Amino acid sequence: MGKNKGPRRPRAETPKGFRDYFGTEVSARKAMLDRIAAVYHRYGFDALETSAVETVEALGKFLPDVDRPNEGVFAWEEEGDWLALRYDLTAPLARVAAQYRNDLPTPYRRYAMGPVWRNEKPGPGRFRQFYQCDADTVGAANVAADAEICAMLADALEAVGIERGDYVIRVNNRKVLNGVMEVAGLAGDDKAAERGIVLRAIDKLDRLGVEGVRALLGEGRKDESGDFTKGAGLNEAQADVVMGFMAAGSETNPDTCARLRELVADAEIGVEGVDELEQIAALMEAQGYGPDRIIIDPSVVRGLGYYTGPVYEAELTFEIKDEKGRPRQFGSVAGGGRYDDLVKRFTGQAVPATGVSIGVDRLLAALAAKGRLDRAAQGPVVVTVMDRNRMADYMAMVGELRAAGIRAEMYLGNPKNFGNQLKYADKRASPIAIIQGEDEAAKGVVQVKDLILGAKIAAQATVEEWKSQPAQVEVPRADLLATVREMLGRHG
Amino acid sequence: MGKNKGPRRPRAETPKGFRDYFGTEVSARKAMLDRIAAVYHRYGFDALETSAVETVEALGKFLPDVDRPNEGVFAWEEEGDWLALRYDLTAPLARVAAQYRNDLPTPYRRYAMGPVWRNEKPGPGRFRQFYQCDADTVGAANVAADAEICAMLADALEAVGIERGDYVIRVNNRKVLNGVMEVAGLAGDDKAAERGIVLRAIDKLDRLGVEGVRALLGEGRKDESGDFTKGAGLNEAQADVVMGFMAAGSETNPDTCARLRELVADAEIGVEGVDELEQIAALMEAQGYGPDRIIIDPSVVRGLGYYTGPVYEAELTFEIKDEKGRPRQFGSVAGGGRYDDLVKRFTGQAVPATGVSIGVDRLLAALAAKGRLDRAAQGPVVVTVMDRNRMADYMAMVGELRAAGIRAEMYLGNPKNFGNQLKYADKRASPIAIIQGEDEAAKGVVQVKDLILGAKIAAQATVEEWKSQPAQVEVPRADLLATVREMLGRHG
Repeated sequence: MGKNKGPRRPRAETPKGFRDYFGTEVSARKAMLDRIAAVYHRYGFDALETSAVETVEALGKFLPDVDRPNEGVFAWEEEGDWLALRYDLTAPLARVAAQYRNDLPTPYRRYAMGPVWRNEKPGPGRFRQFYQCDADTVGAANVAADAEICAMLADALEAVGIERGDYVIRVNNRKVLNGVMEVAGLAGDDKAAERGIVLRAIDKLDRLGVEGVRALLGEGRKDESGDFTKGAGLNEAQADVVMGFMAAGSETNPDTCARLRELVADAEIGVEGVDELEQIAALMEAQGYGPDRIIIDPSVVRGLGYYTGPVYEAELTFEIKDEKGRPRQFGSVAGGGRYDDLVKRFTGQAVPATGVSIGVDRLLAALAAKGRLDRAAQGPVVVTVMDRNRMADYMAMVGELRAAGIRAEMYLGNPKNFGNQLKYADKRASPIAIIQGEDEAAKGVVQVKDLILGAKIAAQATVEEWKSQPAQVEVPRADLLATVREMLGRHG
Repeated sequence: MGKNKGPRRPRAETPKGFRDYFGTEVSARKAMLDRIAAVYHRYGFDALETSAVETVEALGKFLPDVDRPNEGVFAWEEEGDWLALRYDLTAPLARVAAQYRNDLPTPYRRYAMGPVWRNEKPGPGRFRQFYQCDADTVGAANVAADAEICAMLADALEAVGIERGDYVIRVNNRKVLNGVMEVAGLAGDDKAAERGIVLRAIDKLDRLGVEGVRALLGEGRKDESGDFTKGAGLNEAQADVVMGFMAAGSETNPDTCARLRELVADAEIGVEGVDELEQIAALMEAQGYGPDRIIIDPSVVRGLGYYTGPVYEAELTFEIKDEKGRPRQFGSVAGGGRYDDLVKRFTGQAVPATGVSIGVDRLLAALAAKGRLDRAAQGPVVVTVMDRNRMADYMAMVGELRAAGIRAEMYLGNPKNFGNQLKYADKRASPIAIIQGEDEAAKGVVQVKDLILGAKIAAQATVEEWKSQPAQVEVPRADLLATVREMLGRHG
């Protein structure tokens, strides 16, 4: 009110679609990523941290469903060069593999964890900066590399707390799909549009069911709102081939492979794909990863256009409630596949590569749903300030506790109102408050207040319990550390 | 050669001034930051991770030596808003403190670690993306908050491997400096330019010595190249005051404070500053941080304009060789101070705050200079591929080693040339290679090759030593794990 003549104050806001992470949000994610990194390291993968900024030309345009130039990325011009924030961790890896190809080992196994940025419309739970956690092998043509990534993904999920039985890794092969297309008469450049529609239709099996997919393979499909989606225009026989492919999944990998082999018998690329799937299954079995953990599933296609061979997806199979309270499977938390052409963009030479990306926020949400996230704030012991001339004494107490490895702090706000100090301790989720006023100082004692027990007593206890279990004890100053230790130990 | 008709290939290069970090460069930094975070956590500080992108108006212009709008940051326009990459971790904290002021505890202790971006001319060892590692307390007016940060900084340095005696934290107070300016007749808005020259002159004491600074306080100074720098134009008496201030440092904090008190006796703000320094020294002593670790030093001024009270700087005192081989002190690795006006930009209300920023790359360089960085690559055990039809057997060996927690991998390149496999193992710094050809498989044995011992023998051994210390042993397949374990144990 009144004088508003100064410059307008800046708004204290994150840009639209961005957010901040506080305390245990940061530490829970870090703990999860540390566990995953340990698995990746054990598998022989080396850390790589590329710069967040790349040239637009190095990044290329590999975002799904994005056709317009620079659409989907945050880009700006800098002395004639267009720079952009990376939108994933795969494009920078391809650039690194090309830039350092004479120095890196071949094959090069690397993992990377960090934020990526997408210039997309933000929505609920959909941010423009988010974490990815990738592992890739560059320079290995053999599908043993794909099998290794699948095994590592299973180990990583178990390492962070997803139990065996709660996840399955589904493996398919784009080459088999290409063979199916060929058998269905959809080979050739002039059929690219139809192949695209078929691919997207298969990807929707979960949501639309067999009938819906069949409609999309034929003339098209009208959804509940009355909107019509044009189909691929396949005839009955063609559609049968595709539907047969999708239904070829079985309980055992050899069964599935046998059915697929029959389906694509007339297409060389398809047979090659089935051979690879059989090799992957055999390599998995040899390491003890049975079809309860890693299974061949023809319905997995993965959205990205650049995959050229095996594709894989980790799905969490336990149920959660959706926004309407209905049970549904948690779904996909990671996916990847073989992309043999990304490095070629730079060097002109094909470099085989395969890798996986874990959706960090999805996996964190899954751990939260399973109660596996340690989000409990470990609040500090708070030494209150009763007498502002005795700060040095309080700091000495804090120093003693910290030196013993106990998280502790002195109240640093205005000490006048003691109630505010206890409110602060409450907000910090402090387990213990230490109090030493003039009287206590004179007697050489301190009050040690068990705030966890205090909260329990306040919530439910009878007067008798209160008396038998005092939440506050007076001890000699020399016993401060021992008392705090004992009290913390009581709460685990 | 020949057909060059396709589109130009993108260059595989990081943008100018950016770089990538590989393997142990990533893990050594992470290990150091983890140790620092543990100290910060023990002191009651909570993690905060803000988005990398901020609005330009929220960031403000607080880069040192930058006057032009948006100079120094990477910025771009997005639907009418100007966005930018953060240039430090303090500006985002000020924004967070304002945005969440009703939800955060008061005081709010937070730490943050992450990359920041500066749009500056890159140079040798000077990059446009680099890490900072900050801790700040917002909402605490008492200098106990500054003392706490200094103690924490000392603990953090020791936690990462800088020994006591190899560092000192120097503390000064801008209020004392302001008092000195007042006594020297440099108070008032019309003397701002002179004060700036004086401040920069003091900051150059290390480099120019007493005579050089004295010249800058007076008419000015001609440097070796003949360039003349205009001075502050102080007369003898005025310059004496400033020089007296710089020389007031003593072996003991009480001595230093007594000398400063005398110097600024006529300036209220100066006396207040000395009072604060005395409080800080007393609080430090109470926690056991003597002047061997934290000392009051009037020559510390810190470059940034926004400091309003105590300023502090961590200096490493051990010697390294400069580029010409001359010994010099390692110098500053961290600094900070009290800035009471940054949050006010947003809210209009003054919010006292103080904090420190550790230069992550500088500290890593210091640890490397002291031989304290664990940069030794922990290479994986490499299972070689002698027979490409027996991949599953090799993968089973790898799986067995990994399940036992041993870093291991199968060679995934083209197995045709066995020499390439051993070259690969060498490049990966592998401690052990496993070999099983047709003959070994038939006999149910494997060859386990100690590559570390092998390298030693190759470098220096006689034929006798070679025979008595075989670097390669043949063991039953069932003994693979035990043999690898034993061999790894031998090398620690």
